[in-house]
Formats: sequence, C-alpha cells, structure tokens
Amino acid sequence: MAEKRVGLRDLAAHLRPAPAFVLVRPQLGENIGAVARVMLNFGVRELRLVDPRDSWPNPAARGPASGADVVLDEAKAFAALDEALADCRYALATTARPRELLVPVLDPAAAAAECRRRIARGDRVAVLFGAERSGLTNDELLRADAIVSIPVNPAFASLNISQAALVLAYEWAKADDRAGFSSELQSAAPATKEEFEGFMRHLIGALDEVGHFFPAHMRESMEQNLRASFVRAGLTESEVRTLRGVVKSFERARGRRRSHE
Amino acid sequence: MAEKRVGLRDLAAHLRPAPAFVLVRPQLGENIGAVARVMLNFGVRELRLVDPRDSWPNPAARGPASGADVVLDEAKAFAALDEALADCRYALATTARPRELLVPVLDPAAAAAECRRRIARGDRVAVLFGAERSGLTNDELLRADAIVSIPVNPAFASLNISQAALVLAYEWAKADDRAGFSSELQSAAPATKEEFEGFMRHLIGALDEVGHFFPAHMRESMEQNLRASFVRAGLTESEVRTLRGVVKSFERARGRRRSHE
Repeated sequence: MAEKRVGLRDLAAHLRPAPAFVLVRPQLGENIGAVARVMLNFGVRELRLVDPRDSWPNPAARGPASGADVVLDEAKAFAALDEALADCRYALATTARPRELLVPVLDPAAAAAECRRRIARGDRVAVLFGAERSGLTNDELLRADAIVSIPVNPAFASLNISQAALVLAYEWAKADDRAGFSSELQSAAPATKEEFEGFMRHLIGALDEVGHFFPAHMRESMEQNLRASFVRAGLTESEVRTLRGVVKSFERARGRRRSHE
Repeated sequence: MAEKRVGLRDLAAHLRPAPAFVLVRPQLGENIGAVARVMLNFGVRELRLVDPRDSWPNPAARGPASGADVVLDEAKAFAALDEALADCRYALATTARPRELLVPVLDPAAAAAECRRRIARGDRVAVLFGAERSGLTNDELLRADAIVSIPVNPAFASLNISQAALVLAYEWAKADDRAGFSSELQSAAPATKEEFEGFMRHLIGALDEVGHFFPAHMRESMEQNLRASFVRAGLTESEVRTLRGVVKSFERARGRRRSHE
C-alpha cells in the first residue's frame, strides 16, 4: 500500500521510546529483515540480536527490510541473552507453546499496556523472540517476567517470527496511542435540521406531484420509512444539496415531458 | 514457532463463521498464499479473489501458504467486485491512504467488533484488500460500508497485503473471543497463609541463628522488607516447600561446618 506524507511530527512519533525487540539465535537474515520492517511499521526501532547464526551485519536482511534500514543499521549483536538484557528492567517472552512454568501469561494487548506503563517511568523493556524452528528454551523464557501468548488458531498455529513481531509491534502502537487516519466525515459539517427538513419537504412535495403516496391511508408510514433511511445516513450539508439537485432533475424531466405532450 | 496439538474443539473453532477476505486484483500468487496463511492462523477461512492478474488456481500460492491448503482449495475467483460481494450484507475496505470520501473510518478492533456483531445475526461480511501497488480505487472503496485504518507509522507505512490481512485476522480472532494459552499459574495452588507463615518463621529463625538482624533496632524494618518481596512473588504451595528446602540446606551446611570446627 502507498505511503502517506511524512511530517516532522511523524518522525518524532517513531523516535519515541519503545520496547527493544530481541531475537534469540535467529537463523535467516531474511527473517531479521522482515522483523525490522514490521518493527518500523509500528514505531519500534531498537533491534537486538543474540548469537545470530550468520555473521552480523548480514546483507540478506536488507531486501526484506523494505527500507527499514535505520533499524538494521542500529541493531546490535550480543553473544549471550543476559548481555542483551543487561540494561532492561522488564522483559517479555513470546512463545507459541504453553510451558509448564509458573510464569504469568499475558495476551498481546495486556503485554503492550504493561510495556507502556514501564516505559513511561523511564525503564528499558525488552520483548524476546525465539529461533525460527525451536523457539525459546525454558531457560531463556525464565529470563522474562512474563510470557506473551498470541491467540492463534490451535489447528494452524505456524506463525513465523516476523508475524509474531508484527502482532506485538501493532499492539505496542495501539498502547502508545498511535491512531490511523480519521474519516473525512469528522470535518464535514452535518446538515442543519433546517437544511435537512427543507430537503425532506422538497422530496415529499415532488413525490406528491407524481402521485407517489398511494393508497392515501399509507401516506404517513411511507413518509416515515423514507425519512428513517435519510435520517440514518447522517447527511452532510453538501450531501443535502446533492440530493436536492437529484429531486430537481426528476422535476425538470417531468416538466420537459409534459411540454412535449 | 511450533504447533500445538489439534483437538476436535480446535477444529470446530476454525470452522466458526468468520468474515470473507476479498483480494481485489491481486498480482503475485505468493502474496495470495501468504494471505491464506495468516487467515487460517486466526481462524478466517473464506478467501475470494477478484480479477487476479494470473490464472487461478495459481501454484505460486502453495509455498507461502505454509500448509493453509484448505483456504486455497476453497478460494473462489470472481470477474468483478460486485459479484464477489453479492451475498454480503456488510463490507469493510482496508486502505493505507486517507481518502477524501465521506465514509466512516474504523480502527481494526472496532471493525472486527462490527463484523462479529453482524456475523452473530447470520449476515455474511467481507473485508476488502486492494492490489499490492495501487490499493483499492475510490470506486471500489465505495462498495464498502466503512474503511479500516491500521495505526501504522506514517513515516514508514509500507505494510504489505499479508501484513494488513494479519492485523485484520488477528483482531477478528480477538473479537471472536479466541484466547491464547493461559498460565500454569492459574492451576497451581497458592500457598495457604499457614504454609507461607511457616516458611517466614523458618527463614527468620535461621537468619536469627546466624546473627543476620543487626543492628537490633533495624530488625523490624529488615523483616518487613524481606517479607514484602516474598509476599509479592505470590508463592505457590510447592514453591514454599522449595524455599524451605533452600533454608534447610543453609542450616545443614552451618551444622556441618560447626562439627568440623
């Protein structure tokens, strides 16, 4: 999908503090790039790699990052998980499999809200993602304060690492009060009741002219049904004008036909 | 990540009614496959294709579907959008770009909740996704009752089609009350207060033996600080036993050292 224009405010938004995403023993550079992309999509910028299988920097990450170069350029590689987490005061671990560990489990939205709360008081926070095939070991999981469980279809649970990262980054953006664009409707003035009633009188008068309200005893409910559908549309000022134009065209056509008769 | 075991209940869950995902003029078969995968990951099964660039079925979709064959096998291709939507009573359109259209805009969670409400009363519902490069045209968007806007970083908004589908499918799963796994903590019995106090007395007694509480006037606050950290851990019955074992080991070691002296 196409990009929106970038303003200074937007750039500031993606520089706001956010959790660090920590990939533990990642294998394919392509996956590291795909994670970088979804991170930046949702304003998460800090990537840490623990013991990546291939050397780092890894050129294979570039393409799938689709331009999220800033994330790759600033990514840091660590030899061990404890080093990668040293400055963090809170950590979450993602896992597809339930474990027999007495650790709290949060859904992604609750996890993001907890990150937000801790980041707001200045703490560094990490979200851990395991290796592509094997995930995180129990020892690695127990470096985290809580586990995040994504509500994936148990009959088809094969989320890949960038998809799991997307869910966490998306929930982070929501918790961090990012919003998408809003509707043009919010700035369009709804018609005043006078304008709306003017349109309804115009329409009903024109329908009267053509004998629409028949039989006569049904007139009241026919008018009410018609009114309900226009009420529900929540017409704007300009839409009321558009619809009066429509009625006028019908009236004019009828006038022309008459003059031909 | 690894798959969980599949039970009958799980299979039933992914057969529950869900929105149809409609790809309008999709180009790459690989992307169609990637969409099928994230759909099935979150229990969305019905895929409709409008005027796909390549013929359908398209073997290029298989690999990226990663086993979501059921979605591809049941996918239907249509010549025109109106045909694909004919049986739907509500439609949503995803777009990365704000449009100058007087159509309501929903965030993904609100959109999923609206789908849930309508599906609950038996209506068919569609979510439209545009072509990879160009997205949906305004004419196509106006086939939908509302637009969905994903809160993407405006400075880096290049979500691809399967990522947009993932966000919508994930929010659908949440709205449809799917949950991830829960913590083992929920089934582990918290220690009774008697067990907990027994541990605290044991620990404090052992610390008394080794002269830990010094100076004496600090004793009360030292005890309280120690107690607070164990209270906060919310210890289970078996963890209390584990910790009493730890204290016993220290006591035993001290006994041994004494007997060597």
